[in-house]
Amino acid sequence: MYEGVVQDLIDELGRLPGVGPKSAQRIAFHILQAEPADVRRLAQCLMEVKAKVRFCATCGNVAQEELCNICRDTRRDLSVICVVEEPKDVVAIERTREFRGKYHVLGGAISPIEGVGPDDLRIRELLARLADGTVTELILATDPNLEGEATATYLARMIKPMGLKVTRLASGLPVGGDLEYADEVTLGRAFEGRRLLDV
Amino acid sequence: MYEGVVQDLIDELGRLPGVGPKSAQRIAFHILQAEPADVRRLAQCLMEVKAKVRFCATCGNVAQEELCNICRDTRRDLSVICVVEEPKDVVAIERTREFRGKYHVLGGAISPIEGVGPDDLRIRELLARLADGTVTELILATDPNLEGEATATYLARMIKPMGLKVTRLASGLPVGGDLEYADEVTLGRAFEGRRLLDV
Repeated sequence: MYEGVVQDLIDELGRLPGVGPKSAQRIAFHILQAEPADVRRLAQCLMEVKAKVRFCATCGNVAQEELCNICRDTRRDLSVICVVEEPKDVVAIERTREFRGKYHVLGGAISPIEGVGPDDLRIRELLARLADGTVTELILATDPNLEGEATATYLARMIKPMGLKVTRLASGLPVGGDLEYADEVTLGRAFEGRRLLDV
Repeated sequence: MYEGVVQDLIDELGRLPGVGPKSAQRIAFHILQAEPADVRRLAQCLMEVKAKVRFCATCGNVAQEELCNICRDTRRDLSVICVVEEPKDVVAIERTREFRGKYHVLGGAISPIEGVGPDDLRIRELLARLADGTVTELILATDPNLEGEATATYLARMIKPMGLKVTRLASGLPVGGDLEYADEVTLGRAFEGRRLLDV
């Protein structure tokens, strides 16, 4: 055990996700030896995030105002909504520069094991956005795992009767990877989704 | 990229040791969804550690006053000093409850590659503590790696002529481990240091 405040800091750091006791200790000693200005900046960032950041009233993404940057951006395509589980998925998709529509962040995926049902997700808010007919395509970009697939199927069944085009991101081999390292499910999906080569 | 303060927090977290971009993002989202009181406590711990913690004037361990808890403790054996690299080594040794003497924290180990020479360590302070003849044994508990061994050898050569007993922690098989998993150097050391069984 360390003296007073050092142990307090190790305890608090140890509560963060992915930070075990050893990392917490390592970070605490880094803090002890760091420039006071650097530590003050970190502490301020922590407080500011709590004070300034909220969730976009339209799409549920992180936002510093009533609406997030993407919802406020008038150059984006209003006819397509990409549905994701978490704000970090928005960032991952934005990084590709492939998508110019809007997003809808569900806040998770349906998971009976973790007690997350459709009512715990921002599905009602999604339906409200589809009501006026502006949106013509819904891309279901939930995670390619059990919960994400279940959520996509649930949403597809609910929304298809409304006459919208409902799509799902392709499954297949990761680009730059080795075929032999792909798991059998992914390889199976890659066969299912094979494309005709236009040469 | 995230909006303003969220990205700032991710950047600041990513500067901590052992926190990569993915973990920084994960921690930032945890913070976003955490109770404001919890986040305030973490921020306060960070600031308090910088404000209150310093290094013990005698041994170099972390301290909240001029001297650390161990240096202030009058029940500890003044005749033995255990020399370690970092304050976390003090904590590890204290956990064993095997040692009742005092410590001396060098603040690292001699490493020509990282540009750390004897003058960068608290060796002068160690010599000053040995001057009055109270200390009769010096236990060199630097890490059992290249840098730690070099530092121990350097100190032993300097201090042995002063007439002190200079010892080094035993190398050998970890207790509870499997012999077959020990690396060859450790196994070799275990042979070298074998003890006569008194049965």
